[in-house]
Amino acid sequence: MGLQYGLEIVGTFVFAVSGALAVREHEHDLFGAGFTGFITAIGGGTLRDILLDSYPLVWIADVTFLYAIFAGIFVAFIFPNFLSKLLRTLSLFDTLGIAFFTVLGVEKSLSLGVRPEIAAIMGMFSAVMGGVIRDTLTNVMPVLFRKEVYAAACMAGAIFYLVLNYYGIPRDFNLIASILVIIAIRMITKKYKWSLPRLD
Amino acid sequence: MGLQYGLEIVGTFVFAVSGALAVREHEHDLFGAGFTGFITAIGGGTLRDILLDSYPLVWIADVTFLYAIFAGIFVAFIFPNFLSKLLRTLSLFDTLGIAFFTVLGVEKSLSLGVRPEIAAIMGMFSAVMGGVIRDTLTNVMPVLFRKEVYAAACMAGAIFYLVLNYYGIPRDFNLIASILVIIAIRMITKKYKWSLPRLD
Amino acid sequence: MGLQYGLEIVGTFVFAVSGALAVREHEHDLFGAGFTGFITAIGGGTLRDILLDSYPLVWIADVTFLYAIFAGIFVAFIFPNFLSKLLRTLSLFDTLGIAFFTVLGVEKSLSLGVRPEIAAIMGMFSAVMGGVIRDTLTNVMPVLFRKEVYAAACMAGAIFYLVLNYYGIPRDFNLIASILVIIAIRMITKKYKWSLPRLD
Repeated sequence: MGLQYGLEIVGTFVFAVSGALAVREHEHDLFGAGFTGFITAIGGGTLRDILLDSYPLVWIADVTFLYAIFAGIFVAFIFPNFLSKLLRTLSLFDTLGIAFFTVLGVEKSLSLGVRPEIAAIMGMFSAVMGGVIRDTLTNVMPVLFRKEVYAAACMAGAIFYLVLNYYGIPRDFNLIASILVIIAIRMITKKYKWSLPRLD
Repeated sequence: MGLQYGLEIVGTFVFAVSGALAVREHEHDLFGAGFTGFITAIGGGTLRDILLDSYPLVWIADVTFLYAIFAGIFVAFIFPNFLSKLLRTLSLFDTLGIAFFTVLGVEKSLSLGVRPEIAAIMGMFSAVMGGVIRDTLTNVMPVLFRKEVYAAACMAGAIFYLVLNYYGIPRDFNLIASILVIIAIRMITKKYKWSLPRLD
Repeated sequence: MGLQYGLEIVGTFVFAVSGALAVREHEHDLFGAGFTGFITAIGGGTLRDILLDSYPLVWIADVTFLYAIFAGIFVAFIFPNFLSKLLRTLSLFDTLGIAFFTVLGVEKSLSLGVRPEIAAIMGMFSAVMGGVIRDTLTNVMPVLFRKEVYAAACMAGAIFYLVLNYYGIPRDFNLIASILVIIAIRMITKKYKWSLPRLD
């Protein structure tokens, strides 16, 4: 439980930071930024749990998640310029967040007894839907639909986890390996500007 | 039950009016306007109840809500100009709606046994999410993210209610006082064009 | 069960095709197109089942739906030009999809014990909400709000089904008659460019 719980809290914190900072280009006030940080942090996991009928939602049952979110929003308010720079140059926070959330989403879904295909979809949803909801609310084309390899990296990491899990690889090792796979795909495709083919 | 139920029906009616009228600038037909009124009226409370796993949803269990929504849409169709003028000069309907729904959302959440922090968030969600969904569907920047003090007024009213509730203030008094707090914050900040600081 | 199940699978396939093709004007890659096809196919029925607290969701419980969706996405990838042409000239796929989903949504809602008014709304939601979510995510004004008779055709077909059902018309006949009513309304209003009045 320890490693998973820690990653989940870190991922939540990280998504709250990236959500709160995402509104900087717009005319949002602090409350709007906090609201967006909150939605970004809870959106993906909440959608997954609603789809799987898994209640109570984690951020409602465990107040630590709320505090992680508030901390993320607060840090975003205090160091917006420093963190924005980090975000833009490295996409660091977002990549970490989607990597954690994908793998944790797959694990949670498996523990609820669904098929691996569903678990892979739920892992990807956990990771990307917070950002999709954030972008939809703020009238931005969701990152998912932009040219980068984004949701596909999550899906690849989810499938990687499921394959290693199928072959009985120890869980903590699998957890970290799959997270690294997602981070690596994101970084490499970003660096070389690789993208998936389009439909035309 | 009497006062709460009455306010809930009035709030639902009021949101249906404001939702149906919100589409006037667009090219929506009557069906689209009715649809938008419906979504605006049920959106916030429905999201709250889904997040809290509270079923059946009120508008599904109690047909009075449906009739209040249909009445609101009908009134909006009959007197669009009169009501639009009211809406624009006073924001009357919307302010009443969010004030009622915030406090009722806090009460319902507390009655379902969640922590006060969650109840405050759920109160605000009940009030503003119908409008957020409405604006998102119609491709408008949600009012939440515009410059006015909007969701923050709901949050302030929710916290006010929780504090008075903590000190044992009688419920009906608290209900009305908290609604007035939200209305007052909205009206004062609007009149003097106060807004919260931005993130920059 | 046979006829309903078959229609549901066909409707799901058809919506996946139309969803995957809907992104062609944008700069989406194949993954984004598949994602959109998936959301379009499951969106309406999933919203209906969440609102009615009907779990597990069909596409999670029955893997045939997943395969129908993947098949629809795959076909859209292989024959995009041929299918796009079909879609544009006849709106064939979308009209079939909304007709099937409306009637199946009404039936499922009735079987869950809700009032006819709610069943009609749920039938319409089942049919149009997948497309509404698709359009919202891709920053397009939902088809629901454009000038055509769209959601209103679904609502008319839902009411038609409920009336025939009330008078004890055999179910399979009713199912097909109501689907034809929706298709006919869509085609006739489209051909003669009829539209509902606007609010002004």
